[in-house]
Order: sequence, then structure tokens, then C-alpha cells
Amino acid sequence: MSIRIAVIGAGIMGADHAAIVAQDLPGAVLQVVCDMDAARARAVADQLGAADAASDPQAVIARADVDAVIVASPDFTHAPLSLACIAAGKRVLCEKPLSQSSAECLTVMEAEAAAGARFVQVGFMRRYDQSYVEMKAALDAGTLGRALMMHNFHRNLATPNAAFTGAMAITNSAPHEFDVVRHVLDVEYTAISAWQPRRSDDVVAPVVMVLETDGGQLVTVEVNNNAAYGYDIRAELVGEAGSVSMTPVAYTRADLNLSSATRYDSDWRGRYHEAYVRQNRAFVRFAETGIFPQIASDCWDGYCAARVAEAGVEALQTGRKTAVTMIERPEFYA
Amino acid sequence: MSIRIAVIGAGIMGADHAAIVAQDLPGAVLQVVCDMDAARARAVADQLGAADAASDPQAVIARADVDAVIVASPDFTHAPLSLACIAAGKRVLCEKPLSQSSAECLTVMEAEAAAGARFVQVGFMRRYDQSYVEMKAALDAGTLGRALMMHNFHRNLATPNAAFTGAMAITNSAPHEFDVVRHVLDVEYTAISAWQPRRSDDVVAPVVMVLETDGGQLVTVEVNNNAAYGYDIRAELVGEAGSVSMTPVAYTRADLNLSSATRYDSDWRGRYHEAYVRQNRAFVRFAETGIFPQIASDCWDGYCAARVAEAGVEALQTGRKTAVTMIERPEFYA
Amino acid sequence: MSIRIAVIGAGIMGADHAAIVAQDLPGAVLQVVCDMDAARARAVADQLGAADAASDPQAVIARADVDAVIVASPDFTHAPLSLACIAAGKRVLCEKPLSQSSAECLTVMEAEAAAGARFVQVGFMRRYDQSYVEMKAALDAGTLGRALMMHNFHRNLATPNAAFTGAMAITNSAPHEFDVVRHVLDVEYTAISAWQPRRSDDVVAPVVMVLETDGGQLVTVEVNNNAAYGYDIRAELVGEAGSVSMTPVAYTRADLNLSSATRYDSDWRGRYHEAYVRQNRAFVRFAETGIFPQIASDCWDGYCAARVAEAGVEALQTGRKTAVTMIERPEFYA
Amino acid sequence: MSIRIAVIGAGIMGADHAAIVAQDLPGAVLQVVCDMDAARARAVADQLGAADAASDPQAVIARADVDAVIVASPDFTHAPLSLACIAAGKRVLCEKPLSQSSAECLTVMEAEAAAGARFVQVGFMRRYDQSYVEMKAALDAGTLGRALMMHNFHRNLATPNAAFTGAMAITNSAPHEFDVVRHVLDVEYTAISAWQPRRSDDVVAPVVMVLETDGGQLVTVEVNNNAAYGYDIRAELVGEAGSVSMTPVAYTRADLNLSSATRYDSDWRGRYHEAYVRQNRAFVRFAETGIFPQIASDCWDGYCAARVAEAGVEALQTGRKTAVTMIERPEFYA
Repeated sequence: MSIRIAVIGAGIMGADHAAIVAQDLPGAVLQVVCDMDAARARAVADQLGAADAASDPQAVIARADVDAVIVASPDFTHAPLSLACIAAGKRVLCEKPLSQSSAECLTVMEAEAAAGARFVQVGFMRRYDQSYVEMKAALDAGTLGRALMMHNFHRNLATPNAAFTGAMAITNSAPHEFDVVRHVLDVEYTAISAWQPRRSDDVVAPVVMVLETDGGQLVTVEVNNNAAYGYDIRAELVGEAGSVSMTPVAYTRADLNLSSATRYDSDWRGRYHEAYVRQNRAFVRFAETGIFPQIASDCWDGYCAARVAEAGVEALQTGRKTAVTMIERPEFYA
Repeated sequence: MSIRIAVIGAGIMGADHAAIVAQDLPGAVLQVVCDMDAARARAVADQLGAADAASDPQAVIARADVDAVIVASPDFTHAPLSLACIAAGKRVLCEKPLSQSSAECLTVMEAEAAAGARFVQVGFMRRYDQSYVEMKAALDAGTLGRALMMHNFHRNLATPNAAFTGAMAITNSAPHEFDVVRHVLDVEYTAISAWQPRRSDDVVAPVVMVLETDGGQLVTVEVNNNAAYGYDIRAELVGEAGSVSMTPVAYTRADLNLSSATRYDSDWRGRYHEAYVRQNRAFVRFAETGIFPQIASDCWDGYCAARVAEAGVEALQTGRKTAVTMIERPEFYA
Repeated sequence: MSIRIAVIGAGIMGADHAAIVAQDLPGAVLQVVCDMDAARARAVADQLGAADAASDPQAVIARADVDAVIVASPDFTHAPLSLACIAAGKRVLCEKPLSQSSAECLTVMEAEAAAGARFVQVGFMRRYDQSYVEMKAALDAGTLGRALMMHNFHRNLATPNAAFTGAMAITNSAPHEFDVVRHVLDVEYTAISAWQPRRSDDVVAPVVMVLETDGGQLVTVEVNNNAAYGYDIRAELVGEAGSVSMTPVAYTRADLNLSSATRYDSDWRGRYHEAYVRQNRAFVRFAETGIFPQIASDCWDGYCAARVAEAGVEALQTGRKTAVTMIERPEFYA
Repeated sequence: MSIRIAVIGAGIMGADHAAIVAQDLPGAVLQVVCDMDAARARAVADQLGAADAASDPQAVIARADVDAVIVASPDFTHAPLSLACIAAGKRVLCEKPLSQSSAECLTVMEAEAAAGARFVQVGFMRRYDQSYVEMKAALDAGTLGRALMMHNFHRNLATPNAAFTGAMAITNSAPHEFDVVRHVLDVEYTAISAWQPRRSDDVVAPVVMVLETDGGQLVTVEVNNNAAYGYDIRAELVGEAGSVSMTPVAYTRADLNLSSATRYDSDWRGRYHEAYVRQNRAFVRFAETGIFPQIASDCWDGYCAARVAEAGVEALQTGRKTAVTMIERPEFYA
């Protein structure tokens, strides 16, 4: 039997999720596309052959013909809708962040623990990206020796609007790095420092962060939301015996006009399409079996990402190294 | 309604096709896995959740619960089974080659033309590979100017057995290049020359070919079935204004022991998985609509690949440049 | 007339300088090789065809048949010998650092200013390296827009001995980055922060630094003296419009054993040979003309490197961001 | 005592050689610059500080204050001037080709053998290029196994004039590959085939050649004199166990406008400057000692390059594989 999935949110992320459900997930059916904008929900549903379109997410979650839910609506709805899914006893793949507030993440964790079973998978899809998979495999295989550092560069072509701030770089963009580095290194953060260089114009400047871990590693993260030249994600894991680096993924190189060049994408969609597919396939298996996917992010991971982002914003605003204090990892998430 | 697909042949290629049908083709169902070795068919069918297993391909093609067929059995069966599919009025994705004999390819072409509709898609999946797609797009966009040359390198780790010959390199391996270069350049071959260097051991030496086209281009192809270092496919398209080259696809690079290294695969499966998926999705749409996929290979392409391979074998055996004579392209395939 | 050069110090650096004078500097003659170890001086002198060998550096500086001096003896001798050269009215190329003490650098600056002419070139050869030359040219050409960040990675195979400390990584290794980044960006540092991850063994761990500049840029420097995998220097200059990165310099790539690999050197000598030659050629012209080379480091640069290193050591020891306070740039060095 | 060198020819190549003598060859002095155009000779001599300028090459060769000669005048003068040097008992570095006529090469060989000593070094500088040095070292070290193939691509931005022909691509450009491949593989050629694709304009089309060796190897050479995108030399040596490839030499990479790009040079001067310097240093030692440099090209090599070029032109004109017949290697060149 196919898993009938409702996708809540029909913006860029939601439409992408809906397309993956419709086109890349055998064993799943795109049952409902839901958006506050009913016309947009209908358009996406029609284009992808969904059974239905809707505009009330709570009602969708409750529908008998919906087995599992993907939440890709605006950030502030993530936690409430995840709670609704837990209450309805349905598995949910919640886009990152679970919440920008660690306190709200705790609420979801408590609800899930109270329900006594796993319901929430958080959509930090980088864990499924082949580059990080290979980096983690190299570390786990022992060839690099003990991990010492991980350097990360997160560059977007340009911010969608001029209101984007350094704090938002930390709360909206950097969590991808916060989560995947924790996952690759299998550590928690203990402190974070943050800086911004000065730009000559009005758009947000890059944010540079140095994080310390409970394993004694250093993690550097540059988030450059106005990198101007392209969408470019880099990472290097440095161990005591050597290093492993993400390589740019390109299929051709052009030799023209005294130049030998590969192309950058203008956004993340090409680079991470395969990671989303893998993640969502894992979610379908989760929805079928109730067994939480081995490498997926859960509510605890969502909480950790929110906590380090909160500390990062404080570090940026105060100019001081800020401790990343966290609750003890609950037994439920051990 | 889902297209119910039978996969004939449960060896490496057949099992890969069956897995793609089962896991990567929404809108398709793996209905039957068929192999002369009934136990092997059953094992693959069970592993992938196929509805049934079988050992008689003709009976499978005739089944009412089979809408379309993928033929991945031994080469000599390709043409007869394709003919059976045409006779049964079912679309077939026939693994390359359609036949190693151009005469037998003609038989299939005639049957298809007589049937008055397209039934046969030939599995030259490289046309769907992102590198070739980008090469063709660069050429078609005019940035390279007119095409002058295409250089191709086809390297396997090692031949499966010591009986592999230079002629087999031309008839079994090189057709991938013969077909995709014809497709990228939109030309036919007019002549071929072939050489082999001398190895110091018993395994088959590389074959180097130079082909001439009716567009005035030169095409070089090296097939090195015992390259020893890895599975490695390279191609460069040289135009009057510049050049576009396939780049190696890697996700990480390791720095260890005074070396900075990326890895080669040991076979084609990782490199071309995505191309097979795209090709097979195109086949599902073909089976649904009867509209032949825009960039897929058809029987005419299968015939052309067989003809140039026949001429290549003659060139290698005689040591002389050999004309590639072909029938006129039938109206049906225009 | 050839410039007769004395090289003081016949260790690795001194012998390399002597070889460059003898083999790569038309217009210069290797007149004397001087080392406290007279036998070593003699061996290097004989091997390279120097006119003489000696063991007393002060006497060598005073010799009438010595026109100019290269100081490559231990660090603590750099400032005293540079002072002796100023007193003797001879141009000196002093290996980095001018002194590890900024106070001692001031002494040399004062002596040079009192002499009323330029005598001292400091051997930060990276300014002459083609990669940095191209990075600075790209910035100066305006294609990158305003500089925002510069990321630097300085990796050695292994420390020469176990007594090497994180403070030494800052005072001995990082000054190369401190100087060349100041040069490329044309800025001064205002603050520095420093960290070390934890290693599992006794050798020195990497040091990670974040520097702020008076131009509002951020500069990151990783010094990893026990990188284990090879000698590897990386740098990236990020501007508002794009970025320019140092590329690894390799002449061949080997495809063997499922790996495609380039080689790392085990030390800096291959990578920077050409930079040393260019720097030393500039020094010969300086000795001939008295005109200080346009891009070379002078005593002010030596002072700046020492000051930021002192602040870096403090930052590492206190765990706090440390201001880089400096005297005003003297008129003499404007 | 310095070797006093006369450079004959003050065009691009001659001026480059004169500059190398003046600036990169300790132990050598630029004594005379000679050119039929006396004003040009004078200009180059003055710019580089040569002792004298002249316009009669025979007189220059005879001068008592000239110890050795570099011939960089037009091709047709190479053999006569080399003969004059032999007659004068002076070592000569003769730019490639020794002669485009193998018969004329034989004349020089006979004169040299009659003189009973080595006088002529032929300027195939690629043997000194680091990439080929490493390729040969990898082969000689045995890691590649026995050599099977060598693939070569020789691309210029554009021909200097429209009168350049395919035959000239073989006689003027390809000899670099003919010589260095013979050297790396340590073989002689036995046959050559040649083709040209069709261009849409008037400039010379590329020439593609396949050569066979007496060691059983295949050698492919593409000479594309109007490659349009840049000066680009590639080579790959394929052995039974693996392969070694020349890598592009770049110092920086620019990330701008959705592109990650390295630059091509517009001519050979940057790429091969170091090879010329190394070659010319070897020539100075040859002039000093009379001992022929171990890896340099001699008259036999010049003859072999001319013979294969002659056969190549015939192959291109007849469209047939052409045997490369040669005299036996004379005892003198053994």
C-alpha cells in the first residue's frame, strides 16, 4: 500500500517536496497539497496530479486519507503543525528549522516523548548529501585519524530582500552547517563566536563563526548570503592524519575566451536535489515502519540547531564568545 | 494507471533495470522479472517486490498483465525479443545493442515500420547523461562554433574474462560512443580506422579508432577494457570557437600521505545510474503515450551503431580505413 | 659590476639563499658563506663556488669585498645583524622575522631612519609568489569589488620537534600570512582572536585565528604544523563581487588503483622557490640602486608582523580577543 | 670564466633566448645579438646589456669573443648555421627544427660525426618541462607498467597568418610532440596516419595523427593551430597499470558571475619559460664541458623529428598510412 502524503506549503520548498513525492518516491502518493493561498495549492496539485488541494493545514493533518505529512510552510508554523501531527499520530517531515526558538523545540520534544513514539523527522537534508556521507565515512573508517577541525563555507548568490540581517544568516542559513557538522563529527557545541566584515553597500555582510565542541574540535562557518558569484557550499574535515574536502560537482567544463570554466548554480536546488530525494525516501520508510531513519535529524537535533543559533546571535550582537548551554539529552532521544 | 513492466534478464543489467523500475519510476510497476534461470528471476523479483517471476520471455511478452517490456537478456536475444514485442504491440526498451548484426537490426526496423508505429527504444543511456546533455546544449547554443572533433576515452577496470578481443571492444563497448557522438554531433559516420597497441600480457589491448563523419568532423575513440586504474569515461567536443569537456564527477577529495586524490568507481553503475533513471522514465512516458522520446535511441540508431561497429571490426582486422556504408535513412525514422 | 653578496647562515634557509645567489641571480656573486659552524660554511661555499667561507658574521659584514648581505642565521640574530649592516652602510635581505620582538623591530627602524636611507629588506617572500601576485592584481583591478575576507590555511607535514608550541605557530609560521595578507589587502590589523583544537597526542595542535582589519575585513588563518598529509598553503580572497583562490600547483596527475591523485611536497622549497628567486632578484636591484623594491617588506612590515604575532600569542593564552596596538607609521616608512 | 654566447636571430624566439642568457644563466654572458635587421639586433642588445650587436651570422660565429652560439633565426638557416658552428668548433643550441628536411639533417649529422665530437644541441625544450619530466619518471619507475599509448593535444590560439597549412602544422608544430614522445617512451616511430576535419572558414583546420612505434605503442597527436580559446598543451601517457596526465598549470582561480575559471595563456612563453631556462642552462654546461646533456635532443633526434614530419605530410596528402623509414642510428649517436 502506498503512503498518502500531504504537503503543507506550496512555495518553492513545498512545491519541490510535492514534486519529489509525485515523481521520485515509489511507495508514496501525493494526496493533498495545502497552502494558505488556495489557488497556489490548487495549481501545484494539478500540475503534479495530487488527489486534492486544500488551504487549512489542521484539517489536512486530520484527514483519514492522509497517512503522513511534509511541513514546508513558513518557519513559525513548523512547531505547531508538528505538534498537530504528533497529536494526530502521523509521521511528519518538518522542514528545517523545527523552530527558531529552542524553547518551542522543547515543547515538541515533550509532546513526542509523551506520545511515546517517534513522529517527527526534521528536514536537515545535508546529512543525505553524498559529499557529507563520504566525509563521515572517511572519518568513521579511521583513515583521517581523530577529527580536529571542520571548515564550512555557505554562499548564496544574493539575499531575497534587503531586510535580511546577520542574525538571520545565523538563524536561517547556518543551521544547515550546525546540524550536519554535529552529525559528521558526532559532537555537541560548547561555545560560539561571531563576526561580520563591513560591506560598502546595504546588503547583509557575511558572518564568520568559530564554534568549539565537546570533543575539543574547532568548527568554522562562513555564511555569505550575498556572495554574488553563485551558490557555493564548501566543507573540509581536518583530522590528525589528513583531510577530506567536498569537491565542486560539475559535469562539463568549457574552454572559451582564454578561460577554462565550470558553472555555479544560482540556488541550492540542483546541488541538493538528490539529498532531498534520499531524505524523503527515508521519510516514506519511516512512515511505513515507524522506525526512525538512522541518519535523519530528529527533534533533539532541531533543538540543538536552534540553541547554537540563539547563542550565535548573542555572540554576534555582543561581540563576545558565548557558551552554548543545552539541556541534557533526554532519554527518549538517546 | 501504472504501467506494468516486465524485465527480461536478471543478470547485472537486468537486476539494475528491475531495481530502477521498482524504486525510481513512479507510474510504473515491476510486474514480472524473467530469466532463463528461474531461481535468479525469483530472487530478483522477491527482493524488489515484483508481482511475479518467470523464465519464458515469449510468454511474458504475451501476458495481459504486462504493458511494456525491458529487454536486458544476452545480446543475441535482443532483436528476437524486440520483434516479439512489436508483434504483441508492446513498447520495449531494448538494452544496447539492438543487434550486433546490422542486417538483423534491419529486420527489426522493417517489422516496426510495417506495424506503423514506434515500439522499440534502444538503451543507449548516455544520451541522458548530464555531461553529454550539457555538451550537446553548448554545441546547439552556438557558443562553441561549428563542431570539428570529438575525443572519447572509454576505460574499464578489466575485462570480465580473457576471451575478450579487440573486435569485442568495438562491438560491445564502443557502440556507447558511436551512438552518443552521432547524437551530440547530429551526423553519420563515413569511415573508420582502427589500431591496437601491443600489451605484454594476454588480456585485450586498447583499441584506438578514428572516425570520419558526413559533417566533416573527426571522432577519436579509445576503448581500453583493461585500463587497470578504474572505470573512467572522458569526452571532449572541440568546436571552432572553443571546447567543452566532460569533468570527472566526485563528491569528495582526500588529502593523505602526500597525495590529494579523488576515487574512481570500479564499474559504470555509479556514474550512469542517473542516466539510466532518466532514460527509463522517458520509456515509461513512451509506453504511456506512444510518443517516442525526443532524445532516445531508436532502431535506426541501433542499426547505425551496428554498421559502424561492423566496419570498425573490418578496419581493425585489415589495418585499413574502412568506409561505413549504410542504407538510406527510412522515411519511417526521419 | 656584479654585486658581491655574503650569506650569513648556512642551514637549510641559508644554503638555499646561497644557491639562489650562485645559480639564479645574474649580476650577483656569492662572495662569502658564513656560519658559526665553520665546516658547514666551507662545505656550502665549496659546493656553490663561493669565493670564501667564514664564521664571524660581524667581520663578514665589514669586509670590503662584500657589497650586500643576506641574513639567514637563527631568528635572534636577525635584528643585531641587520643593525650591523645599517651601520656598515650595506643593504641587507633579512630572513623573516626581522625580530620576534616588536620592540627590537623598532630599534632597527630607528637606526635605519637615523641613517636616512633604506638598508633593510625583510624576507617575506610570499609577496613575490605568483598566486598572491594574481590575487592582489585581481583585487586592484576592481573585478572582485571591495575585499571582505581573506581565508588562509598554512599546513606543514610535521613540526621539526615536539617542543613546538601553539605560540610558536603564531610567531614562526603565521607571520607569512600576517604579512602577505596585509600586503594584498593594504590594511593593518586591529584585533586578533585565537583557538586550538585538542589533539590526542603530544604534538602541537593547529591554531585558528580570526583577525580584524582597519578596513573592516575579516582574516582567518589556520596554522596546522602537523597536518601530516603534506605541505599545503591555501588562500582565498573574498570580495563583494566574487572571490579569487590560490590553486594547487601540480604538473602531473596519476591515475592508479582507483585513485586520481596529485602529489604534495613535503616542505616549502618547491612551492616557493620561484618566489625566493624573484625576491632575491629584487634585492640585487635594491643593492645596486638603493631604490627599495616596490612590493618587498621593509622594517615597518617586520614590525607589524611582530606586533600582530605578539597580540596573537596573548589572545591564545587568554582566550580573549586582543587588540593589535601599534605605533603610528613613521614618516620614514610612509 | 663565463661562457660568452652569441644569439643569432632577434625575433620573438631569439629575443627570448637572449633574455634568458642575460637574466637566467649565471656562468653565461650575452656577448652578441645578431639579426639580419641590424636595428632589431641593436635594440635587443641594448635592452639586455649585450656587449655587441651584429647582422652577419657567419662573422659572429667566427668571432674570437664568442664561445657558443644559440641559433634562433628562420628555420631554413638552422642547418647552415649549425654547420658553421661545427666548422668553427663551437657548441650551438639550434632552435627546432634542425631542418625541415631530413636529408639536410643528415648533412649536419655527418659533419658532426666527421668532427668527432658533439657540437649541436637541438632546442626541443619540452624534454625539460616539469610535466614531461614527471611523466617519464613515472614510466621509468615502473608504476605505470609498460607504456601502451600517449595522447597529445597541441593547441594554439590562432595561426599567425592565413597561409598556414595542415602540412605546416605537421612540420612546424607537431615536431615538439614527435620529439618529446620519442624521448618519454624511448622508441622510434614506424608509421603515421593523418586527417583533417573540415572548418567553415579559411584558417587551417586541426590535424589529427596516429603514430605507431617500434615498441608497439600508439601515439595520437592533435595539432589545432586555431583552437581559438587559448594556448593549451595536454598529454597523457597510458600504461598497462595506469596513466599519468599533464595537469593545467594555474596559480589562481576566479569565482565570478556564476563561473569558476582559470586562465589560459595566449602563447607558449609563460608555460615553457622554465623549460627554456633549464634547457639553456644545460647548454651552458655543455659549452663548458663538451659533455652532451643527458636528456637534450641531438642531431639524431632532429633527423627523426624531420623524418616523421615528412612521412606525416605524405600521410595527410595521400590519406594513407605511411611508413616512417629511417636510416640506422649511426654509431656516433648511439
